[in-house]
This record gives sequence, structure tokens and C-alpha cells, in this order.
Amino acid sequence: MAEVRGSLSARGEHAFLDALCERLAERRRSSGAGSGLLVGPGDDAAVVETGGRPLAITTDALVERVHFRPGWLAPAELGVRAIAVALSDLAATGATPRWTLVSAIVPPDRPTSELDRILEACAAASEESGAAMIGGNLSRGDALSLTVTAIGEMEGPTLERRGARPGDRLVVTGTLGAAAAAVDVWLDGGEPPPALRERFARPVARLAAGRALAAAGATAAIDVSDGLLADLGHLCRASGVGAEVERARLPRLVQVAIRDASGSDFAATGGEDYELLAALPPGIDDDAITALARACDVELTVIGRCTAPGTGIRLLGEDGRDRATARRGFDHFADGESPGPRGRRVPD
Amino acid sequence: MAEVRGSLSARGEHAFLDALCERLAERRRSSGAGSGLLVGPGDDAAVVETGGRPLAITTDALVERVHFRPGWLAPAELGVRAIAVALSDLAATGATPRWTLVSAIVPPDRPTSELDRILEACAAASEESGAAMIGGNLSRGDALSLTVTAIGEMEGPTLERRGARPGDRLVVTGTLGAAAAAVDVWLDGGEPPPALRERFARPVARLAAGRALAAAGATAAIDVSDGLLADLGHLCRASGVGAEVERARLPRLVQVAIRDASGSDFAATGGEDYELLAALPPGIDDDAITALARACDVELTVIGRCTAPGTGIRLLGEDGRDRATARRGFDHFADGESPGPRGRRVPD
Repeated sequence: MAEVRGSLSARGEHAFLDALCERLAERRRSSGAGSGLLVGPGDDAAVVETGGRPLAITTDALVERVHFRPGWLAPAELGVRAIAVALSDLAATGATPRWTLVSAIVPPDRPTSELDRILEACAAASEESGAAMIGGNLSRGDALSLTVTAIGEMEGPTLERRGARPGDRLVVTGTLGAAAAAVDVWLDGGEPPPALRERFARPVARLAAGRALAAAGATAAIDVSDGLLADLGHLCRASGVGAEVERARLPRLVQVAIRDASGSDFAATGGEDYELLAALPPGIDDDAITALARACDVELTVIGRCTAPGTGIRLLGEDGRDRATARRGFDHFADGESPGPRGRRVPD
Repeated sequence: MAEVRGSLSARGEHAFLDALCERLAERRRSSGAGSGLLVGPGDDAAVVETGGRPLAITTDALVERVHFRPGWLAPAELGVRAIAVALSDLAATGATPRWTLVSAIVPPDRPTSELDRILEACAAASEESGAAMIGGNLSRGDALSLTVTAIGEMEGPTLERRGARPGDRLVVTGTLGAAAAAVDVWLDGGEPPPALRERFARPVARLAAGRALAAAGATAAIDVSDGLLADLGHLCRASGVGAEVERARLPRLVQVAIRDASGSDFAATGGEDYELLAALPPGIDDDAITALARACDVELTVIGRCTAPGTGIRLLGEDGRDRATARRGFDHFADGESPGPRGRRVPD
């Protein structure tokens, strides 16, 4: 059980979490705790079995000045986003949400009316997905944060990050990059256009799509929370495959460049939209994908395919050659010293 | 759906949560979400039914500079305490812990070795109770906090706060007040004696006692997190009864006065030990209580009894007359303006 060295600001969150998950797996093997665990930590949600029924469980936090800045979102939007972010993890497993719990840490000088609106919105957003908000916790603290636990029942097959095979096609739901573009506009001191802002303020967890993809035989899935390329990396690593993605196929709302980044840069690296990325076996043809999209009322776009193990992740330009992207994915603990992630910590 | 006025620092957390719980119940009634909910928000844990089996679910947060101050606890103790605090809610329902999830918010300048020790301790403390740590979340933020979600299976009857009847006897597990006394010593600039410090640093969730009390026919239970009198108030309000407690019977470790408070003041108002308070019907006599205590290897002390509705909560001195206490229970949002709770916010 090696101890990880260094401070969290100087190394990647994901490397830390990978090491932690391995140690947790070791612990479970040696202690025997965790019987009934079908999908362990490290995936979008854990899946456990109780009473013969699989349950998907996830927890996710929204922290002021890390994930959003005061003034960006109305209190109700904060609640909606906090719930959607957690439900999106359930969507990636194909679960049906049943219950949510919200733990709020709130500075004592905030008016109760603000907390009321946040929690009302959490309850309403939970209900919209068919879940009930059944509990939570309230603490005061220096910075506002909302930690949402979401629990769903598996009524069909369970999707994990692992399972994709070379030759599988990669599909994403909806469009990518608009929410991340909104953040960049805010960080630049501007006010994002409503269509972009809405994608950050009110993301929609792709629950029906997750279930439909699972039922159709998807081999793996993940929600795009860190950025398409980053999350594709997680899926490929878990599945032991490579991948190539065609930049021109990335579905996007943003058509113009913002700061140094093009619309497809945002689509390739912006994770804030909480769309799903899934791998579909080659037997599921274009017609089947179109039917699937229609059935769950969401755009589904084939953006590339899984390749042989060891081939890495390639983003292909329109000429079919590798192209770099001007933006990187999200790492909560990244800072200037970290070479990889772009380190979007919202400045105070 | 009345909106609560005022800021969180000027009014009680419990009044706010009561109002919220009522609104959540209204929402569930009108939306139909929340089928399978056996015990709703407002109790120590929510209890839901899935696959024919009841599950108890709770979430609780430990926030630096609110619940503890830097330097009080070693990283491993933080993990132990965070898990115990959540498991204690399960204990109060009579559940058997199965899974935990830990959402950590960590300042980016903290060494990863510290986070490692915290999370390792969370995993180890979970396993000691028979639960596996199956997931979590990692975010950075300005203040360290740990939000633990704990899920347990109900293998016997479910205990709630409501259900106590006039004439029921009130019992508590273990001893009361030592952890709160440790906090007062710390706040006074001292270092608490090891026996007191240990009760704050390593509370033990009374899981076996919770199950044994439920199986024996306890009519209601709550964990003593806010302070005995405060939590007895919650139990009495939920049950619609009054109560009287004999000060001389309160089991305590602290025998000397600390600052202005006597040992029994700490026992009456210190909730940091996470003991259980339960109501037992009169048919369970002293011998049965002794046998129960032996079976689950914990002290059980009869401290008083439930009285008729509307009689309030009375703390009786040794002469049988009401006596005030020099200390009050814990309210996270209390401040100097608040007349009720003592407002122990740990100063920066």
C-alpha cells in the first residue's frame, strides 16, 4: 500500500484516485467487507446488490469558487446543477434514480431564503428525474458547497467504464462544449450568451439515454464531466483499448472561437455539459443508432471508434491526421506546475 | 410552502430543517416521487425499501473550523470520526452498515499524505463496522470537509425518533459529555486529558446496541449528537411526549467542573460522544436492561422517563426539582444573537 507523495496541487486527482481505488480493492479482498459489491469505486457510480436487486450509488460535490463563482448561477440553478451532476453518474450506469440526499455547507451570513431556493431546486430536480430527496445534512462553513448522493435502481444491464472492445463505435449524446465555453466567457469577465449559459446552469442528466444504450448492448459508458478526451481516456484505460475520434464529427453548439479555443476545442475538452459517451459494438448500425436516439429523444452522434490496446487516444483532424487541441480537461487539483490538465480553478 | 426569513446565523438549524422536511413531505405527496420511502427526512437516517428489503441511508459532514479545529485531530482520527458520526445515525435506526461513500473537499496545499491517511482511516473504520467504502468524491476547496454517506440494511425492526409513549423509560448507552468537555478544554487553549480526548477523536457508533434495543422493543431512539437535552427534545417532539431526566443518573466520565460547567452539565448537553438515547416500554424491567447491556457489551443507564404530552422536558436535580444547566446543545448556525443554543463555532 504505497503512500502517494507530494501535495494535491502538484499532481493529478485521477492518479490519486486510481491509487486509492486499488488500495480499497485490496482492503476489500483482505477484510471480506463489501460482499454484494458489483461495481467498485473508480467507476461513475458504485453498484451494490441488496435484496437481490442492484443499486447504483454515487456522490458528487459542487464547491463555490472551485466549480462555479458567486454570481454565475441563481440559487435555484445551483440546486439543479448539483443534482444533475450526481444523476449524470447514475445515467452513465443505466440506472433509474430513486433517492437523493443533499449535504449543504453554507456560510453563516447567507440568507436562509438562498438556502431555501437551493434545496427546493434540489428537491424539484430530483423529482423531475423520478427520485425523491429523502435526506441530507446542513453545516455551516466558510465556503458554500453541495454534496449530493444519488441512488438508483438497475432495471436493465449495468454499464461500466470497462467493457469496450476494439472496433466498437463511440457515440455521444447531445452536444459538447457549450457549458465549458460559458465558463471561459465568465472567466474572461463577460456574460455568456443564454444558450451557452443554460447548458452550464441547467445540465440535463441523460438518464433515458443511459438506460437505452445499456439495453441496446453498449459495451461501456462514462459521463463527460472532465472533458471528452479526458473521459474517453478513463473509458479506454478501464477497457484496455485505444480510440480515435474525428474532430469534425464532434457535435457542438459553439461555432465561433472564444479566447484561443475553437468550437471543436471546447467540444473535445469541455466536460461541463454532462453528456454521455458510450461504446457500441459494430453490430449496432447507423439505423439502429438513429432509432435509439429517437426512442430516448436525444441526439446521438458517432464520433469515432475504439482501437487496439496500446494505440492511445487520437484526435483526428479533417485530413485524418492527428491534431492537437488548444484546451485541456478538468482536474480539480491542477495548478500551474501541473503539465497536463488546464487547471481551471475559478479565481477568487 | 412558506419561505423561512432571516439569515442562518440568526435562527436555529433545527427550525429550518423542520420546515424543509415538511415541504419535502408535501412535495412527495403531490409528485408521487418517493414510493418505497419508509422513514422520511428529519429522522437520523432515511429508510427506503428496495427489492423488498429496507435500507437505512444517511449523510453527515465534518467541517474544519466548524466541527473541529486544525491541530486537534490527527488525519486518521478525522477519518475515524467522520465515519463514526455517519454510522451513529445508522445505529439509531437499528441498521447494519454495509456501504460508505466519502466526499472530501480539500485545500490544494494539503499534502496528499494527509488525505491518504484520512481516507485510509475512513476505509478502515468502515470495515470495522462491517461496511465497505465503495466510492466517494474529491474536490478542492478552501476548507477541509468530509461528507460521509452511510447505507445499512435493516435486519430487524426500524427505530425512529417517533414512537415513544408516556411511561416509557429513557436509557442511554455509554457515558455522556467527555467529548464535549475535551472540546471546551481545547477552546480554552488547553490540551484535554487522554480519556476525554479519545472520546472526541474516536467515537464509537453504537451499532450493536441500536440493533439490540430495536429487537428488544424500544419504542424510539436517536443518537446524541447535539446534546442529550437537545436530542431528547427532538425525540419528544417527534413522539408527542414530554420527559423528565434525573441529573444524578446521567452516566459521565467528567467528574470535575471545566470552566463554568460541571460534569453533569457536560453530560446533559454534550452531544459529541455519539451515544444512543432510547425509550423502552415499562415491560422491559431492570433485569432485562442489564441483560441487554451485557449482550451488546455496552453500559445502558436509565436516566428518566417519558411523560404526558405537553409536559415539556424537565431536568430534575437531586432534590427532584427542576434545575437549569450551565451549558446548551449544539447548533451549527447559532451565534451570539441567538438566545437558545450555545453557539459553539470553533473560532478561527
